[in-house]
Amino acid sequence: MHENINIFDTTLRDGEQTPGVLITSNEKLKIANKLDELGVDVIEAGSAITSKDEQESIKLITENNLNAEICSFARPLQIDIDTAIECNVDSVNIVIPSSDLHIEFKLKKTRCEVEQMAIDAVEYAKDHGLIVELSCEDATRTSVDDLKSLYTKTIDAGADRICACDTVGILTPEKSYNFYHELSKLDIPLSVHCHNDFGLAVANTLEALNAGATQAHLTINGLGERAGNAALEEVVMALESLYNVHTHIKTELFYETSQLVESISGVVLQSNKSIVGANAFAHESGIHADGVLKKSETYEPIKPEVVGHRRRFILGKHVGKHVIHEKIKETNTDVTDDELNQIFMRIKALSDMGKTVTDVDLQAITDDILNIDIDESIHLDEYTTVSGNRVTPTASVKLKLNDEDKIEAAVGVGPVDAAIAAIQKTLQNTVDITLEEYHVDAITGGTDALIDVLIKLKCDDKIITARSTQPDIIMASVDAYLKGANKILTDKKRK
Amino acid sequence: MHENINIFDTTLRDGEQTPGVLITSNEKLKIANKLDELGVDVIEAGSAITSKDEQESIKLITENNLNAEICSFARPLQIDIDTAIECNVDSVNIVIPSSDLHIEFKLKKTRCEVEQMAIDAVEYAKDHGLIVELSCEDATRTSVDDLKSLYTKTIDAGADRICACDTVGILTPEKSYNFYHELSKLDIPLSVHCHNDFGLAVANTLEALNAGATQAHLTINGLGERAGNAALEEVVMALESLYNVHTHIKTELFYETSQLVESISGVVLQSNKSIVGANAFAHESGIHADGVLKKSETYEPIKPEVVGHRRRFILGKHVGKHVIHEKIKETNTDVTDDELNQIFMRIKALSDMGKTVTDVDLQAITDDILNIDIDESIHLDEYTTVSGNRVTPTASVKLKLNDEDKIEAAVGVGPVDAAIAAIQKTLQNTVDITLEEYHVDAITGGTDALIDVLIKLKCDDKIITARSTQPDIIMASVDAYLKGANKILTDKKRK
Repeated sequence: MHENINIFDTTLRDGEQTPGVLITSNEKLKIANKLDELGVDVIEAGSAITSKDEQESIKLITENNLNAEICSFARPLQIDIDTAIECNVDSVNIVIPSSDLHIEFKLKKTRCEVEQMAIDAVEYAKDHGLIVELSCEDATRTSVDDLKSLYTKTIDAGADRICACDTVGILTPEKSYNFYHELSKLDIPLSVHCHNDFGLAVANTLEALNAGATQAHLTINGLGERAGNAALEEVVMALESLYNVHTHIKTELFYETSQLVESISGVVLQSNKSIVGANAFAHESGIHADGVLKKSETYEPIKPEVVGHRRRFILGKHVGKHVIHEKIKETNTDVTDDELNQIFMRIKALSDMGKTVTDVDLQAITDDILNIDIDESIHLDEYTTVSGNRVTPTASVKLKLNDEDKIEAAVGVGPVDAAIAAIQKTLQNTVDITLEEYHVDAITGGTDALIDVLIKLKCDDKIITARSTQPDIIMASVDAYLKGANKILTDKKRK
Repeated sequence: MHENINIFDTTLRDGEQTPGVLITSNEKLKIANKLDELGVDVIEAGSAITSKDEQESIKLITENNLNAEICSFARPLQIDIDTAIECNVDSVNIVIPSSDLHIEFKLKKTRCEVEQMAIDAVEYAKDHGLIVELSCEDATRTSVDDLKSLYTKTIDAGADRICACDTVGILTPEKSYNFYHELSKLDIPLSVHCHNDFGLAVANTLEALNAGATQAHLTINGLGERAGNAALEEVVMALESLYNVHTHIKTELFYETSQLVESISGVVLQSNKSIVGANAFAHESGIHADGVLKKSETYEPIKPEVVGHRRRFILGKHVGKHVIHEKIKETNTDVTDDELNQIFMRIKALSDMGKTVTDVDLQAITDDILNIDIDESIHLDEYTTVSGNRVTPTASVKLKLNDEDKIEAAVGVGPVDAAIAAIQKTLQNTVDITLEEYHVDAITGGTDALIDVLIKLKCDDKIITARSTQPDIIMASVDAYLKGANKILTDKKRK
C-alpha cells in the first residue's frame, strides 16, 4: 500500500446528492471547517455550476483559508470550469462518462467526441492554473483498453490525478484489486471512488488502495446517491486498525463529525452503523457485557475513545447480572445475591414484553424487591393544554411536590413545549433540573400510533433517562418528564 | 464457490441481540414465517435458555412445520441443550469461545477444559438426535492450530457442521479468504459468521464463500450486536448479481421482509441502506434521473423489482428538467420549454433553502408560472384542541369547503388524532380521502424543535404527498393534511 494515502472527502458533493438532502451555505461551511479539523486532504465543496447558491457556498469555503485543497466538480465544459474558477477553488474534478452504455444512451455521442471533450477540458483547466483530477464515470463497466486510452490522452493534456468510479457499485473485492492494480501501472496519482449498492464500497476501496490506488473518495456516514458512497470513518479506521496504515486523520473527531453531518443532512444513522452508530459500542447481552466489563477487547475491536464515541450498557432482555449490579451500585444501594437474582428475573420479564429498561424502571424494580417505600416526591393531579391556529399554546399543571400543592401555567411554541414549561415552573424552587435531550422516535402509521418519548434530564452532572409510550404525544412527554424528575428527587433523598 | 450455498438466518438470535431490540413471541413467529417464505435454509430461532418467553416463542415456531431447519443457540452446557430439545428444534448451534483472550479473561478456564466441554456438549446433543453445528467464538483471534485441534475433536465427537466467528469484525477480505480457505480443508460443511465493526461483514462473508465456506450466517437489515452482522439481502444479491451464483432465495421478497423486520425491531434503516433502504433506487440529481429515464442500467445495477422495491424520483436541488416535466404531465398540464425552465429555476431556488419539494409545492409553483388561479377548495378558519390527563382529547375545526361553512368536532386518542378526525368529518360528503401514511421524523433536541410532518393521502388510487414543518406538531399535522386535500380537490377540477 502507498505510504501516504490521500483522503478526498466528497460529503459536500456526492454526499449532498443523497436524494432529499439539502445543505445550506452556512451549514456547508460548518461541515468544511470540521472536515479540515479532521485532517482530510481534499474537500470537494460542491459543483459550482449547480446554482448561484452553490457558488456562494463554495466561495464561503475558499475564503476561509483551510489547509485542505478545495475542489469543485465539473462536467468537461468550459462554463463549468469558468464557474469553478470564479469560486477560487484550488482544483477541479472533471467527470466524464467512459462506458459505452453511458456514452451511447446518456450522452448520445461517439467515444471520439467524448475523448476530445475531456482533453479540451483538462487543457483549459490547466491553462487557468487549476489542479486537475480527471474522473471516469462508470469506469468499471468500460473496457480497460478504452479506459487507458482516455486516461493516457488526458494525462498528456496535463491531468494531475486520475480517478476511476465504480458508479453503480458492481465491483467485488477481488475485481477491485485487479482493476485498480491495472490502472496503477499508468504511474500517476490514482483515486478510487466506490458506491455501496451491494454493501461493498468500503471493502472495494480498501482493496483498490491495497492494489496501488493512492487516494480514496469518501463521504462521512457513507452519504451519497442511492445506497451511498464508501464511508470515510469506516475506511480510515480499517486502514489504521486492520491494515496498520497510519493516516493523518484525527480519528477521535469521527463521532462529532458524524453527528454534525447527521443533524445537518437529516439522514439519520441506523443504530448499528459501523464506527459511529449509537450501538457501535453498546452492549446488552449478558455474555458480551460481562466480557467487556472484564476486558473490553473481548467484544470491542477498538476502544470507543479512539473515534470519540463512548461505551453504553443497555438493560434489556439479554442483560446479565454484572451490568445490573454495576447500575444499582451507582445509586448507593446494596443488594444481596438473592435480591440481585430477583431483580434480574424481573428485568427479563419486563423486557420480554417489549421495551428496553430505563433507569427509572430499574429503580422501581429494585425498590419493590428491597421493600423500599417508593414515596414519590411528585404526584401529578391534573394537566390541561389548549392550542390551535388562533390560540397561543397554553398549559396548566397541578401537582403535589413533597406534599405541597403547586399549580402553574405556561405558554410555548406548541402544547408539549407549554406543558413541560409549566412543570418546570412547579419545580424551579426545589430542584435544578435541565432537559438535556427530548427525543421522539419517528412516527409511522396513523395518527393513533403509539409515540415513544425518551427524555434525558440532568441534575448535578448526573443524567437520568426516562421513557413513556402513549398514543398522545403530550401525555407521553409529561409522563416521561415526571418519571425522570421523581427519580432525581429519590436519588437525592438516599444520599 | 460451492454449488449450493446454505443460508443460515440469525435475525431472531444475533439480530435480536441488537442492543435495545426486543421481539415478542408472536412477532418472532411472523418473522420466521416470512423467512421461510423467503427460502432460507436454517432459522436460528433464539437461545432457548434465555427465558421462559424465549422457549415459548421457539416452540411456536417449531410447531409451525416450516421448511427451514429450526435451530437454537446453546452454550456447551447440558442445561442449554436440554432446554433446546424441549422446544423441539431440529438443530443446535453450540458456541464455544476459542481465543486465548476469551478463554482466559471471560471463561477463566484452560484450553483443555474448554475442549472437553465442547466435546461433551456435541456428544450429548448428537445422542439426543440433534443436528449439531459447532461454532468457535472469536475464531479469527485464535491460532489456526488451536482452532483445528478444537474442530477436529468436535468433528470426531459427531459435529455435522463447523462455524468460525469473526466476533469483533477484524477480518479484511484477503484475510477472510485465507482464513476460511485453510478451514475448508477440514472437509466438513463450514459456516462463515461476520460482524460489521469496520463495515466489512458483507465483503468478508463473500470472500469466505469464495474460499470454500458452504454456509453463511446472516441477518435481515444487518441487525446484531454493536455494528451488526452481515446483511442477508446484501450478501444474497451480491452472490446473484456479481458472482453469478444462484441461490434459491426469493429475492423479490427482500423489501417486504426488510420492512417487517424494521417495524418489529424498531431499528430504523438509514435511507441509504443498500438494497432495501428508502433511497436504494431513488434519484434526485438531473444527470442521474435523466440517465435512468433513458435507460435504467446507467445508474441502477439491478432493477428495483428484483428485490421487490420501487424506483422514486425526488424533486430537490439537483433535480433535472426531465423529471419535473414527467411529474407535471401526470397532472394533465402542458408546459412550454420556457415555462418548464421557469419552474425548474423556482424548484432549484426553493430547494436551495433547505427541503425537498413535495407534489403540493410543485403544483403551487406550476400554477403560479402558468398564471392558473389557484382557487383553493378548502380554507381553514380556525381549529382548537384541548387535552390533558383528565380530559378526552377533543378538537373543533371550522373551515370553508367550496365556499360553504363547515364546522365539526371530534375526539381522538390524542389531540393530533382528534384534529385530523374533525377535518375528515368536514370533508366526508365531498371527497373520499384516506390517510395512507402519517409520518413524523424523529424529533431530537428540545421541546421547541421543528417538527416535520409528511402525509400521504390516497384518493381514487392516486397518492399525494404533502409536508409541513412547524414547532407545534398539531399545527403541522393539520396544515399538511389540508395542503394534501386541497391538491386532490384541485386535480379533480382539472380533469
